[in-house]
Amino acid sequence: MSLLVVGSVAFDAIETPFGKTDKIVGGAASYIALCSSYFTKSVNLVAVVGDDFPNEFISHLNNNGVNTDGLQIKAGEKSFFWSGKYHNDMNSRDTLVTELNVLADFDPIIPASYQNCEYLMLGNLTPKIQQTVIERLTNRPKLIVMDTMNFWMEIAMDDLKETLKMVDVLTINDEEARQLSGEYSLVKAAAKIQTMGPKYLIIKKGEHGALLFHGKDMFYAPALPLEEVFDPTGAGDTFAGGFIGYLAKTGDLSFDNMKNAVIYGSAMASFCVERFGTERLVDLSEAELNARIAEFKKLSNFSI
Amino acid sequence: MSLLVVGSVAFDAIETPFGKTDKIVGGAASYIALCSSYFTKSVNLVAVVGDDFPNEFISHLNNNGVNTDGLQIKAGEKSFFWSGKYHNDMNSRDTLVTELNVLADFDPIIPASYQNCEYLMLGNLTPKIQQTVIERLTNRPKLIVMDTMNFWMEIAMDDLKETLKMVDVLTINDEEARQLSGEYSLVKAAAKIQTMGPKYLIIKKGEHGALLFHGKDMFYAPALPLEEVFDPTGAGDTFAGGFIGYLAKTGDLSFDNMKNAVIYGSAMASFCVERFGTERLVDLSEAELNARIAEFKKLSNFSI
Repeated sequence: MSLLVVGSVAFDAIETPFGKTDKIVGGAASYIALCSSYFTKSVNLVAVVGDDFPNEFISHLNNNGVNTDGLQIKAGEKSFFWSGKYHNDMNSRDTLVTELNVLADFDPIIPASYQNCEYLMLGNLTPKIQQTVIERLTNRPKLIVMDTMNFWMEIAMDDLKETLKMVDVLTINDEEARQLSGEYSLVKAAAKIQTMGPKYLIIKKGEHGALLFHGKDMFYAPALPLEEVFDPTGAGDTFAGGFIGYLAKTGDLSFDNMKNAVIYGSAMASFCVERFGTERLVDLSEAELNARIAEFKKLSNFSI
Repeated sequence: MSLLVVGSVAFDAIETPFGKTDKIVGGAASYIALCSSYFTKSVNLVAVVGDDFPNEFISHLNNNGVNTDGLQIKAGEKSFFWSGKYHNDMNSRDTLVTELNVLADFDPIIPASYQNCEYLMLGNLTPKIQQTVIERLTNRPKLIVMDTMNFWMEIAMDDLKETLKMVDVLTINDEEARQLSGEYSLVKAAAKIQTMGPKYLIIKKGEHGALLFHGKDMFYAPALPLEEVFDPTGAGDTFAGGFIGYLAKTGDLSFDNMKNAVIYGSAMASFCVERFGTERLVDLSEAELNARIAEFKKLSNFSI
């Protein structure tokens, strides 16, 4: 079933204890679109890049069933660029460079052919742009999932709160859940955030897994312990891509199926961190994904 | 099947954001004995206290099937005392007072009636004392589980390494696993620690759950997200008590049954943190425990 993905498509330059990259493809929507295309061949992308962005990546998306009619390419302008350096523990990082470039005045135009998408995934962007996307859709999608980050809580909390009222699922990390709710306990934070709009909350805890909350229901998905986390960039977006992709594929919005979607998201994220950027996500085989899912089952199933 | 528990029986004074206590019963072996007695009525305790220790607690242990013939009561001496204050996040604490008292020259005498115990749980103590206990047993138990902490890695690493060679299961937290192995990745840390002696490693991650490693097998048990963590003191010991108690009850040392034991340990720990000290553990009902286990199943089961 059709999925609309909105977010940044950009360049990153990343340094981790294992090495550093030149400018490589990054951006929330790159990860989300790439990852969800493993689940559904009806992915529609809205984003903006400059004319410095590589055609190869766009072609790769197209070859994997991603419609890029909504990808604006601004002649004579440059793509959004972020550069960061991870600390040794990989759980924290310093931002070295942020160049908004084309993202500074991004107007998310929705092609007519994208109307009536059943699923909407709003990657991290200013809450105002996320809201504009929702307002420009003729019919409300069956499910709206939104990612955000602490930055917007600091500079655009009012806009964020407005946008939250319009979505079904929010994905944030544990510190952001605490910041947004003012509650330290994640159970209390989840209850409070559900009163702010989203009926479902996913709290991403990196190497400690992810929590899904809905009313009194909770689900704890483990993260796969790995020999090496090579580069965590994009892991959260990859998770979101797997989550929404699986839901769009199955069309089942029960809590039980959302649990499965969280496991698929976690499995995709476990691939993402094995290489720099999107490298590990460009040619995953179905056999690899199935084997990874089997690892998650072995990791968390018990027989009581 | 019979279980021998060795460790501290002591006083604690605890301060958390929710309140503070006077001197209350604490100590690793208090938690372990109390908790394992929910699973097997053949628990044998070796520990030392002063004559200031309350008879009520000893009677309570006896009434729950814990044999305290091996609990030495030193006339005219004082019990071990620890006092600590938790920070607001509950994940870190400052030690305010440590008075070794009777623990300073603890000689772990094993009553003849305790020989031939099939399970041995060594609570946190100096590695030398833990080793002495093992050496004093006529027959090696079927399973030896040992807990330790970073303190011994700093001041008695050689002794610790000697003791590690003699045990089957080690329980430590994530930072301690990193410190002991010199590896940041927990997968690599677990592999290295398994070459040091224990064939099984349990890494306790507090609110993030627990990992069980054995060869290439891994299991990730969630922690139950709670509205409030009232006092984390003793949670790790309670976990150990549930783990070894369940194994002693079932007598099944397969990896699959160890997974179940980790879940029982996690469930017991989730009760522990709901009140100060051992308060929540003194009169748990079977119905409460079963309901909590059902919560863990709901929390981590998925249907893929």
